[in-house]
Amino acid sequence: MRVLDLIRKKRDAGEMTRAEIEYLVSGFTREEFPDYQMAAWLMAVFLNGMSRAEIAALTDVMLRSGEVVDFSGLPAKKVDKHSTGGVGDKTSLVLAPVVAAGGLLVPMISGRGLGHSGGTLDKLESIPGFNVNLSLDEFRRVLEKCGCALIGQTPEIAPADKRIYALRDVTGTVENRPLICASIMSKKLAEGIDALVLDVKTGSGAFMKRQEDSVALAELMVETGTRMGKKVVALITDMNQPLGCKVGNALEVQECIEVMLGGGPQDLRALCDELAGWMLLLGGRVATLEEGKGMAGEMIASGKALEKFREIVHLQGGDVSVVDHPEKLPQAQHHAEVPSPAAGFVAGIDCEQVGVASLILGGGRERKEDTIDPAVGLMVHKKLGDAVKKGETLCTIHYNAGARLAEASERILSSYRIESQAPPLPPLIYRVIGV
Amino acid sequence: MRVLDLIRKKRDAGEMTRAEIEYLVSGFTREEFPDYQMAAWLMAVFLNGMSRAEIAALTDVMLRSGEVVDFSGLPAKKVDKHSTGGVGDKTSLVLAPVVAAGGLLVPMISGRGLGHSGGTLDKLESIPGFNVNLSLDEFRRVLEKCGCALIGQTPEIAPADKRIYALRDVTGTVENRPLICASIMSKKLAEGIDALVLDVKTGSGAFMKRQEDSVALAELMVETGTRMGKKVVALITDMNQPLGCKVGNALEVQECIEVMLGGGPQDLRALCDELAGWMLLLGGRVATLEEGKGMAGEMIASGKALEKFREIVHLQGGDVSVVDHPEKLPQAQHHAEVPSPAAGFVAGIDCEQVGVASLILGGGRERKEDTIDPAVGLMVHKKLGDAVKKGETLCTIHYNAGARLAEASERILSSYRIESQAPPLPPLIYRVIGV
Repeated sequence: MRVLDLIRKKRDAGEMTRAEIEYLVSGFTREEFPDYQMAAWLMAVFLNGMSRAEIAALTDVMLRSGEVVDFSGLPAKKVDKHSTGGVGDKTSLVLAPVVAAGGLLVPMISGRGLGHSGGTLDKLESIPGFNVNLSLDEFRRVLEKCGCALIGQTPEIAPADKRIYALRDVTGTVENRPLICASIMSKKLAEGIDALVLDVKTGSGAFMKRQEDSVALAELMVETGTRMGKKVVALITDMNQPLGCKVGNALEVQECIEVMLGGGPQDLRALCDELAGWMLLLGGRVATLEEGKGMAGEMIASGKALEKFREIVHLQGGDVSVVDHPEKLPQAQHHAEVPSPAAGFVAGIDCEQVGVASLILGGGRERKEDTIDPAVGLMVHKKLGDAVKKGETLCTIHYNAGARLAEASERILSSYRIESQAPPLPPLIYRVIGV
Repeated sequence: MRVLDLIRKKRDAGEMTRAEIEYLVSGFTREEFPDYQMAAWLMAVFLNGMSRAEIAALTDVMLRSGEVVDFSGLPAKKVDKHSTGGVGDKTSLVLAPVVAAGGLLVPMISGRGLGHSGGTLDKLESIPGFNVNLSLDEFRRVLEKCGCALIGQTPEIAPADKRIYALRDVTGTVENRPLICASIMSKKLAEGIDALVLDVKTGSGAFMKRQEDSVALAELMVETGTRMGKKVVALITDMNQPLGCKVGNALEVQECIEVMLGGGPQDLRALCDELAGWMLLLGGRVATLEEGKGMAGEMIASGKALEKFREIVHLQGGDVSVVDHPEKLPQAQHHAEVPSPAAGFVAGIDCEQVGVASLILGGGRERKEDTIDPAVGLMVHKKLGDAVKKGETLCTIHYNAGARLAEASERILSSYRIESQAPPLPPLIYRVIGV
């Protein structure tokens, strides 16, 4: 087999065999051929697509490029959730403790913020001392002790994905369904889970703006996971506005604690109930989705979820006192208001721009080497459909670096569309795929 | 401007501006960004194509990436010929002396053999001492002295093409019309010529097997050259069988000397007359193609062409005595016959396989680092339409390494199709484009 022939085959829209994909991916991971050949192949995949069989093979080969965690000895079912990313999308921090409190195991391997979207690891690291860089052994120990663990990708898990993703990032080959599917599913299936709930975002703050693209990706991931013997369901959920009201790392941790205390914004709580309900259902703890949602609610109402969260924070080295005193989380030095330029109703939000505003403040990374300011972010006061007076605050900006305020403020202002009529509101959940 | 954005633009089938193409090509040539980004862009170009304006811009930017030779001070028009490559395609060695003898200047920068096709430089180097690696100053001196010079690409000429071609070669992005056009035309137009005759091959021994592909490439090159103020014409010529009867480096030099002596195979002589006629016409030495062909014939009949050839060989350091004693060219130690398996007529030749047979014998390079054996090659005795008896010799193989004989012989044998009826013969020239 020659790499050049494999590039040509995909260039000419041929269907690759599993052996060919394996040759390519494992050779690339072991640095047996140069990056430029993989780059050419990735662009050919981007433009010519992949069949279902090719995607399944790619996922499987990437998954097996490293260690596949085996938690089969543990007594309960292992369930995870993955979101395609959005703004204010913080459900993982609630779901892991809720579902663990509900009796399942949640071995959650998460990512960093990417572009305008936040990342679970960055959020967790705003808790002083919280360590997301556990080894696989430590990961297993935390999981055994408290039923969930929240870590970053380890070098052992799907190393092929790490190398391929880094190359996609600099060659314009990120936004491609087959490659996204293989990347997500290879990592998730390497975690040793039995079931997976996918939260596929759609709308102005999602990576996929159009619902049909989100649905197509969801179908692909559900099919790929199911082929591999896992229970997988995907929810197509709305990302035409930030989820909840807080955007920014420490701010989002704070909002999750509010939810686990029984409060927090209605949309965030509703989505957490829904996702947790599905996780409990796929994990076999309940017989119906409604029961699952009920159990999630109980875990919150009884304080068991928050207690579980306290446990994780403790086991992963974090300062547990922030759970009861969220004011001990990093706080920005300055606040500034973004006032509404007109009276009316919030008719639209360019949600990606809201995410970019948070990134500009220091809440995300513009380059890989940037460090994150955990304290900065936004409080969103007006959401879709809300009535607003002229001059009333749309958002409060929490910032440290004054130089970045003007641009962030400008972006938020221009992201809001105020109209005289209240708009129809998007549903929180558009569709469920895979049941 | 960011390279990543430019990759994305072409990936999404956008049309790039001249400034964008310049940024990309000059940045790549100066090694300002990694090969893998250029590889991704090249594959996007391969699959999404380029507009006429983009191709013209790419050609111009590549041409200006190095030195553009200025021969405007020289008294006569400068004319060159370029062939897209084939088997036994040796016209350059005849055309340069014929057209120079006819009073034009022929500053010919040629290439090496590529795959199954031979290269002018490799052929010339079979003449003991012949130096194709002249500096641009030496090139000019030879050109001024005798009216033509035959060299290889210098580092000063279109360095962008050199780097891009090397990358295309290993990323499956060679066989693409816009990229081929820009590569050929940038080098040729950097030679400081006034006019160019393109010999675009079509058929089983050409890189483009289908006539419509050859025509499309020819049209593109003619348009691109014309846009740049040059007189350009393209002939679509047949490559369904080797041109002439000799294939292999020293053998082809020998056959060219035969032609300049007034002999040689009819098809080779006819194509030389035709191409030389066009060169003399575009260079303004004659008023019609017929006159041009007549003048070419005179240059041969009068011995002026051969005299000019002698002069070039001398000026470029070669052993002039081979012109009168071609037996002093490298000779293979062994000969072997390939007999016809049946009686009938030669109905088809897989001409690429004949080229590969010569390559296997050592007449070409399988890898860049291979050295060429100038002596080996083939004598083709039976061409399309020829009657053949069972056991009669189709080809004579000239070889040195016995280990390679069987494979070469097998390829030649399987490349011939013998049928009971004489087939219709392909024309030598299908079409002329650009007048």
